[in-house]
Amino acid sequence: MSINLDRLKALFSEINAINDESFGAGMSRLAYTREDKAARELFIARCKEAGLKVRIDAIGNIFARREGTQPELPAVAFGSHLDTVINGGEFDGILGVLGGLELIRTLNDEGVQTRRPLELVVFECEESSRFNIATLGSKVMCGKLGYEKLKDVRDFQGRAIGDIFAEFGIDLASIEKAKNLTPNYESFFELHIEQGPLLYNENIQIGVVSAIAAPHRFSVRVQGQAQHSGTTAMKYRRDALCAAAQIVLAVESVARENAASGVIATAGNCTVKPGVMNVVPGETTLLIDLRGIDLRTREAAYEQILGEISRIESQRGVKCEIKQLAFDEPCALDGRLIELIAQKAEQLGLSFEIMPSGAGHDAMHMSELCPTAMIFIPSKDGISHNPAEFSSWSDIANGVNLLKSAVLETAGRA
Amino acid sequence: MSINLDRLKALFSEINAINDESFGAGMSRLAYTREDKAARELFIARCKEAGLKVRIDAIGNIFARREGTQPELPAVAFGSHLDTVINGGEFDGILGVLGGLELIRTLNDEGVQTRRPLELVVFECEESSRFNIATLGSKVMCGKLGYEKLKDVRDFQGRAIGDIFAEFGIDLASIEKAKNLTPNYESFFELHIEQGPLLYNENIQIGVVSAIAAPHRFSVRVQGQAQHSGTTAMKYRRDALCAAAQIVLAVESVARENAASGVIATAGNCTVKPGVMNVVPGETTLLIDLRGIDLRTREAAYEQILGEISRIESQRGVKCEIKQLAFDEPCALDGRLIELIAQKAEQLGLSFEIMPSGAGHDAMHMSELCPTAMIFIPSKDGISHNPAEFSSWSDIANGVNLLKSAVLETAGRA
Repeated sequence: MSINLDRLKALFSEINAINDESFGAGMSRLAYTREDKAARELFIARCKEAGLKVRIDAIGNIFARREGTQPELPAVAFGSHLDTVINGGEFDGILGVLGGLELIRTLNDEGVQTRRPLELVVFECEESSRFNIATLGSKVMCGKLGYEKLKDVRDFQGRAIGDIFAEFGIDLASIEKAKNLTPNYESFFELHIEQGPLLYNENIQIGVVSAIAAPHRFSVRVQGQAQHSGTTAMKYRRDALCAAAQIVLAVESVARENAASGVIATAGNCTVKPGVMNVVPGETTLLIDLRGIDLRTREAAYEQILGEISRIESQRGVKCEIKQLAFDEPCALDGRLIELIAQKAEQLGLSFEIMPSGAGHDAMHMSELCPTAMIFIPSKDGISHNPAEFSSWSDIANGVNLLKSAVLETAGRA
Repeated sequence: MSINLDRLKALFSEINAINDESFGAGMSRLAYTREDKAARELFIARCKEAGLKVRIDAIGNIFARREGTQPELPAVAFGSHLDTVINGGEFDGILGVLGGLELIRTLNDEGVQTRRPLELVVFECEESSRFNIATLGSKVMCGKLGYEKLKDVRDFQGRAIGDIFAEFGIDLASIEKAKNLTPNYESFFELHIEQGPLLYNENIQIGVVSAIAAPHRFSVRVQGQAQHSGTTAMKYRRDALCAAAQIVLAVESVARENAASGVIATAGNCTVKPGVMNVVPGETTLLIDLRGIDLRTREAAYEQILGEISRIESQRGVKCEIKQLAFDEPCALDGRLIELIAQKAEQLGLSFEIMPSGAGHDAMHMSELCPTAMIFIPSKDGISHNPAEFSSWSDIANGVNLLKSAVLETAGRA
């Protein structure tokens, strides 16, 4: 039996009606705000109406349980998040949560019992927009983030996290009670929009995620010599912007060479000093984001970039200072679950591609606690974190039906 | 007879003691400030002590005249400026003014009379630092700038030019009285530091300026597509910074190809939107300064750059918008005077090179009124507009002696 798409659409409308319009276009439902609270309360009410038992942990993650016929067995978990960025879209995050509830409502309609319990999880504060920390809720649950690292954090408006938590009914000093390294899950599934253009451009219905890429982020400060742009002949220059331009293109070229291994790289910013018309640039700073799904391959690409930078340094007589800003480890998802999802997609007649995720997700952290999988559906033009974010209802229905099929297989019909 | 270097050093010390130290290091003697006024008054007093007759025009240019034995003949003029940039050096501008007075003092010592009158000119407000307008005084004198274009100008601190002028004893509404297209000059000489590294690097004592380069300045706004840097495969990108990097390198390469024709080009700034780590740059803006001593060659280089930009546009699927910011005409200096200076340098045993000036000078405008020449002396490491600006006293003495020799030859001993 297929899910009830009209009912799912109605639930999307209910949740997306909760939005801080003071930010302007799109959806702005930042974590730990009044809007987030309202969305959570509405969702919890809908879960309870569906017969689920709801528990909330000390950081605000929500666990809505449908008991199995063998309650002692590890549960099959699935979910995502309800919070958004500022001026975000209508699908990022909530698809995996609302789709999860629709799956359960359909099982209820069908009168299907599962042997294993099901747990629908809403991770709190997945987006980094408020505190500049992504996947906050799942990190705390997985023991990667605690009181010490969070206590002095402020949101983008300068408000202390402790005050924000207190208003939300969360005690900052007690958040580590949310740490749960043995959640007794058989597996965890996250259904999400791709947020990239691959499925949409290639006209593929489903992405089965093989691995989640992680970034190695660094800045490169190029020190040349500021000189008068009218009086310094080309041959006497040590132009920091020309050197940086070569680095930007070297980064792109290394990423293109290694694209087949899932390497991707971006120079996201370039600032120039003094940055005026009549002075040869003396200093230029680049921000570089290098991602990969395999640590060794990504770091080999990093070494290649360093080699290019050295070459440019000697060629141009400039000096480059490299500063590491982030170094995260990529995470491979569970092979057995990838195979299961691929098989179920085939059975449902859905075209699919096994592909990496370039963006981070709560599933990264869950993968350390239990076998974990992710299902992607197409994002129009790859646009996300933007009011123009769009996924079609037929793609959404496909994704939720596939999630249901995989969950049911894993949980076992009673 | 050589000039008196000790006396010249003392005059440098007197003038450079007048400095707005609130700006910090180096010399800050901005046009139309209290410091500028003090320097001018001191200089006028020294001119009068040397027997010169001083006239000041309606924009503040100073003309100090030493009568010739044939006062009806066109005068031989020479000079430069007393104002500086903020945090400037001790030589830019004042060399030509103080050197000019030392030349006259030496003639006085020698008891030498000239047939033609001599006029030492101090142009007001040569530096663009205060109003973002360079060579203001000589432009007004040459009729290129008047009340209409100046009346709403404010300085970098937002003060109205009319108020600034009034405090300085200048009536904004009357400045066009300074226009004087027939100053009755036989020739004009400007002695200046090179502000570039050629003479210093090549160990040459004198630069005889062949032409003054003029800029064609433009911005290039590259419109690509902002996308998620983790989820957008390299092949799906339209990265505005990568395209801009190619343009920066194309600008450099076109300038290098055309260096022999006196073309020089600089991308002085690069700004990126949104300019964050995790977004593929959607828009990048470059500021480009293209200079040449020959209009045709410079514009041919501009066309070459446009060709490269078009190629990059189609290759990357980006759009570039080009906006002209300045289009000035290069100016060739007087062939007869170039030859005269070269010959005098040879007689004095000075090594010299005939070379273009990359920077603009008051001499550009004077060249439209009478035969005009410029003499350069070396700048250590080519550094200028900087507290580290330095020219050696022996190079200074060479420059002033050469100026004296050329002026005397032109004015004719009585």
